[in-house]
Amino acid sequence: MMKEQVLYDKKFDVHYLNKYGSLMTLGNGYLGVRGALEEDYSEQNRGLYVAGIYNKANENETSELVNLPDLTGIKMEIDGELFSLMDGEILSYERRLHLAMGEIQREILWRSNSGARFKFLFQRFTAKHDLHLLATKLTVTSLDRSATLKIVTGIDAQQTNFGTQHLSVENVRVFNEEVMQGVYKTTESGHTIALTTACKCSLTSDVSFAAKNRRLLTTIKVDLSENIPFTLEKFGNVYTSLDQGQAGKDPATAGLKALKAHAPYGYDALLEKSALEWEKTWQQKRVKVTSKNEFDQLALDYAVFQIEGMTPAHDERFSVGAKGLTGEGYKGHVFWDAEMFILPFHLFTEPETAKKLLRYRYLNLQQAIAKAERNGYEGALFPWESALSGKEETPEFAAINIRTGTRQKVASAEAEHHIVADIAFSLVQYYENTLDEEFMKKEGLALLKETGRFWISRATEENGQLSIKNVIGPDEYTEHIDNNAYTNYMAYYNVKTALYFMEKYDDTDELLKMRGQDFLSRLYLPKPNANKIIPQDDTFLSKPEIDLSRYKVNQGSQGILLDYSRDEVNEMQILKQADVVMLLYLFPELFPSGVVSENLYYYEAHTIHDSSLSKAIHSIVAARCGEHDAAYRFFQEACLIDLGPNPYSSDEGLHAASLGAIWLVTVFGFANISIKNSRLTLNPTLPYNWSELAFPLHWQGATLNIKVTKEHIILTKVSGPEVMIEISGFEYVLSDRMEIAPLIRSKP
Amino acid sequence: MMKEQVLYDKKFDVHYLNKYGSLMTLGNGYLGVRGALEEDYSEQNRGLYVAGIYNKANENETSELVNLPDLTGIKMEIDGELFSLMDGEILSYERRLHLAMGEIQREILWRSNSGARFKFLFQRFTAKHDLHLLATKLTVTSLDRSATLKIVTGIDAQQTNFGTQHLSVENVRVFNEEVMQGVYKTTESGHTIALTTACKCSLTSDVSFAAKNRRLLTTIKVDLSENIPFTLEKFGNVYTSLDQGQAGKDPATAGLKALKAHAPYGYDALLEKSALEWEKTWQQKRVKVTSKNEFDQLALDYAVFQIEGMTPAHDERFSVGAKGLTGEGYKGHVFWDAEMFILPFHLFTEPETAKKLLRYRYLNLQQAIAKAERNGYEGALFPWESALSGKEETPEFAAINIRTGTRQKVASAEAEHHIVADIAFSLVQYYENTLDEEFMKKEGLALLKETGRFWISRATEENGQLSIKNVIGPDEYTEHIDNNAYTNYMAYYNVKTALYFMEKYDDTDELLKMRGQDFLSRLYLPKPNANKIIPQDDTFLSKPEIDLSRYKVNQGSQGILLDYSRDEVNEMQILKQADVVMLLYLFPELFPSGVVSENLYYYEAHTIHDSSLSKAIHSIVAARCGEHDAAYRFFQEACLIDLGPNPYSSDEGLHAASLGAIWLVTVFGFANISIKNSRLTLNPTLPYNWSELAFPLHWQGATLNIKVTKEHIILTKVSGPEVMIEISGFEYVLSDRMEIAPLIRSKP
Repeated sequence: MMKEQVLYDKKFDVHYLNKYGSLMTLGNGYLGVRGALEEDYSEQNRGLYVAGIYNKANENETSELVNLPDLTGIKMEIDGELFSLMDGEILSYERRLHLAMGEIQREILWRSNSGARFKFLFQRFTAKHDLHLLATKLTVTSLDRSATLKIVTGIDAQQTNFGTQHLSVENVRVFNEEVMQGVYKTTESGHTIALTTACKCSLTSDVSFAAKNRRLLTTIKVDLSENIPFTLEKFGNVYTSLDQGQAGKDPATAGLKALKAHAPYGYDALLEKSALEWEKTWQQKRVKVTSKNEFDQLALDYAVFQIEGMTPAHDERFSVGAKGLTGEGYKGHVFWDAEMFILPFHLFTEPETAKKLLRYRYLNLQQAIAKAERNGYEGALFPWESALSGKEETPEFAAINIRTGTRQKVASAEAEHHIVADIAFSLVQYYENTLDEEFMKKEGLALLKETGRFWISRATEENGQLSIKNVIGPDEYTEHIDNNAYTNYMAYYNVKTALYFMEKYDDTDELLKMRGQDFLSRLYLPKPNANKIIPQDDTFLSKPEIDLSRYKVNQGSQGILLDYSRDEVNEMQILKQADVVMLLYLFPELFPSGVVSENLYYYEAHTIHDSSLSKAIHSIVAARCGEHDAAYRFFQEACLIDLGPNPYSSDEGLHAASLGAIWLVTVFGFANISIKNSRLTLNPTLPYNWSELAFPLHWQGATLNIKVTKEHIILTKVSGPEVMIEISGFEYVLSDRMEIAPLIRSKP
Repeated sequence: MMKEQVLYDKKFDVHYLNKYGSLMTLGNGYLGVRGALEEDYSEQNRGLYVAGIYNKANENETSELVNLPDLTGIKMEIDGELFSLMDGEILSYERRLHLAMGEIQREILWRSNSGARFKFLFQRFTAKHDLHLLATKLTVTSLDRSATLKIVTGIDAQQTNFGTQHLSVENVRVFNEEVMQGVYKTTESGHTIALTTACKCSLTSDVSFAAKNRRLLTTIKVDLSENIPFTLEKFGNVYTSLDQGQAGKDPATAGLKALKAHAPYGYDALLEKSALEWEKTWQQKRVKVTSKNEFDQLALDYAVFQIEGMTPAHDERFSVGAKGLTGEGYKGHVFWDAEMFILPFHLFTEPETAKKLLRYRYLNLQQAIAKAERNGYEGALFPWESALSGKEETPEFAAINIRTGTRQKVASAEAEHHIVADIAFSLVQYYENTLDEEFMKKEGLALLKETGRFWISRATEENGQLSIKNVIGPDEYTEHIDNNAYTNYMAYYNVKTALYFMEKYDDTDELLKMRGQDFLSRLYLPKPNANKIIPQDDTFLSKPEIDLSRYKVNQGSQGILLDYSRDEVNEMQILKQADVVMLLYLFPELFPSGVVSENLYYYEAHTIHDSSLSKAIHSIVAARCGEHDAAYRFFQEACLIDLGPNPYSSDEGLHAASLGAIWLVTVFGFANISIKNSRLTLNPTLPYNWSELAFPLHWQGATLNIKVTKEHIILTKVSGPEVMIEISGFEYVLSDRMEIAPLIRSKP
């Protein structure tokens, strides 16, 4: 069945080159390869990224995920005529990302300017069974006559991050007139990267090699006979000095060895191995919906496919960047998106990966403590943006204002502190699911204590009450405000759970416990006002409102900033994204349902949704409020953030958090799971378009399959211990399989 | 008449993009702009270079002429369709480099995929009256209907030197919603470069600005009415911290000020000012031939045009690189080409420029003395390759051998020492022409003494005779040989002229004089053998010979190195270029004419002409030997080195020395001027195809016009003092105008 899930690109259009370049990214968490077409187009950006390989161009810049030398480019000439879809005539064109097996296929029927027709099939995958491997297969058939085909391909180190070069060339080699290898080094971080590749041709060819201007290329000349397909298979791999074990010590040797081992299998056999791994993944993690709108399933599969492709599940030293390994947006940095939008997917499908993402924070705890100290606080202040080192990587200044010549300080590193509590929230979520005492006792407790300690030191006293002043909440259109509801509640939860686990594990830091108790008893927590509205911060509700409809039409474009300065936006009731709504999503039982609805309506009306994190969260809260239509509409709109028609919105990479959020909507929204005191509850409310929703779920050591139909909830325990589940207010113990009816789709 | 001299590019062909990119370079000695088409093609390399702006990418690299941010790129969309000659249909296409006024025009009639026809006229020039200025004009006419045109252009700092980025972005600004400015800094050499530009539109347009990913761009949207042309004029300028005076102190302010001053004139008026300067140049410097083959005149005009464009006549701190300012080949480094192939053109047309090129060496004398010392010699050892600092810039190692992984040491910096004597030769040539005592007393004498001193220390004694061992002559296919004829004779001349000027200017360094006399009396100077052949070095004539015909067919490609290793080539009688022939060119009276002919025949038979410096020198010597056909054939082949049909031979820039050599052939070959004891002699031998050869000549303060026809020599003194000229053995004093006949075309 999975074989049918395909993302299509049905028309060659230069305007969409980089959108599909992002959408057709293939990755395995170790590396990501943008879906650039094999042949070059001036507008097209190629990209090969390896998790953790960052570099600073100079001391004024922050670390950037390095665009590595390219292995995907193939230049072809047929009887001297350059193959380009801008030239000649495209008789048919189709590119398909086959999600089931993780392969891209592109089929083209093309008439050259000379009038002869040629058929091309391009295939490509990055292996899931061997994270270093990528392979390409090209099949060319001359349909009308014999012809001479010239192919030029190899390793192209002219790639840059939009003009910034991060690599010096250490070595380029050709071994045995067959294997090409380039070894590169990042200029500042000093990582060594070895790229190794070789080509295999189906027909006798004239092959030569040359290195020039940072390119190591092979030229292959072959005579095509009419209707006899020619195939070229290209195997490549990437090893770096960041790799674990022997490979990390000598990436070049590892690359040569791996290439020798792989090449004899051939493209098809290697693809099969990789596809087998994908099959396991789909079995383990796929969310299935039966919807009147088939696109829903595709969007869900696509989200899972790309989250898998960008998560470095192999190595706890890295986490998931805001664009994963799909592009250079946000310089490959890791934000709160990793914990709040990506981690839950892993936690509920493969908890080991979630643990690694949390270990990433633990490994960087000292950097966070150092940042807190530099900023005059205690405990751990995690960086708003981080890369490999765990240091703060947020640029100190935003891009220059080209009209004034000034650069505004980026406030996020200084004030967007909620990330500290977000990490704490994820830790507790991890524990509640896994009951992993060992982790919690060591990493969890250390992180909770230091994040809790941060908040205690962060609060300031006024008239006996504690405030958290001068922060930025998730809504970045409102900067430097006091008592942000999201931040204060999250900080409260952070300290409360820190104290809980200190108690549980007999921690003896009595002073911290005492200070924590005091913090909890005196921290100001904004309450709903007379209109049931929870004030986003101390001043938000008193600010003027404007009609946002014209900006909502072009949401995602930040068009408001063309009409108003950032300072002006800050002084109005304008939201970039869910903020109080985010809080309501995380703590569904904090307020009565009436309050939740009122706040959803109120804040949504003031939200432009210029952030890709906004829609899905609104969908979840709407679903829980029984607003089926709105929930489903928000879900569909969230699915279009990358897959929608805007040709340029994903040029610099996919919206990782948004992909994670699509999964969140199905599980936390429509299936409406929530966790309270280590207990799983389920209150499904399917959209009208959906007749069935099914997904696997890891919960406290058990693997469950959960299926929700219009009439029933069917729970199956595949493995693991008995688990207790609360459904619509009733408690069930699941030991094998059970069917519950007819509780769902009741309005709250 | 000059208006008719046009270099045409009559067909859009992606294979020729970079050849024409080099050929259509516009320059003024301060800056050079490659003739890249305005719209992008993936195969196309843009280039903007400023004389003296070099940078080292890292400590292992040598300095490289920096590819600066681009001002020429223009992206156009018509009704959303990207304008590209790869797409749609080209109904007519013609690009013309108008040599007379230094302007490129490109006219295109294009049918978009939508079926509508559009006419484009692109114009571009770099100003000769203001070295910082470049301007573009674009005229678009929609022929069949109204249409929406979107233009994106500005300053693009994503340019690299084949993937190497030399610039950090310091600032990007938009002033008054009109003027864009980018300020950049070279990462190692620390030069500041300011690019300033603005656009002017003929119709009301919707204009916006944005900066992102190293690009500062304006987007202009305009509604085209049927048959009403729309014009966009774009004015740009470049100022750098290397500039003299106030501009060098604040290039950004200088750029803004200049743009304000220039823009109001408009493209046409500015072009006219520039063209006026070109007119003066052509009057001053043009060589005119009346040939049955019109291409001869075009090649000569083209050579003068490009030499003018690449010579930094404004600033003695720079010289002419092997590719001038036309591309990145040889990293923009300065070789002996500057003195031996470029300088004579200037010396005989505008001696002040020749003086500046010699001052470049003088300014770097201390670096040359330091290099000699490091290498264990006395005096001055000028670097084989140099850039701004005058330090040795020859890469220590050649490109890696991709099969062995080893890098061969580049021997030129260690052993290609003839450049020292080449500089000395040029000094004397300069003096003989200008009689510039002031220069000669100071710079000339200092240079001659230190270069002479170098040779004295460079020689080694064997049996009472002095040898110069382990050198490389101009022929780089023969490395590490002893007593290279070219080198020894040139060294002898160097020391001899040093002593002459020491004597003349009462220099008191008696020790140097004594050592010099001893050097002259004992230096081994290879004499013709029994077959009249001057041995190129001690062992050359005893080496085996092979049939070179198949390599001569593909001369210029270094194809021999595909069949033989460098070491193997070294052990055979195989020449890359003229070597003994070069010696015979420089010293026409050193040997009897019979010896000259024999050596020309012998060495030419062993020369592949893989160097672009070879053909023209053979032409000169053949002309002097009365070998009219061979001389003319060599001349024509030399003219094709850049202008010939090979699509890729000039990709990385024009062959500057070859362009200079084309001029040399006409003046030193066909007009056959030579200088002996400060006296000019003239022995013309026109090719059969030519009925007339005329050129201006500066000689000892006088400006002469020399016209050679089949029957007469007509000499006109335009200005300056009386001069003595020897023609075919008779002496004449030229005070006004004289006609001499019928001496020419006599075989020697």
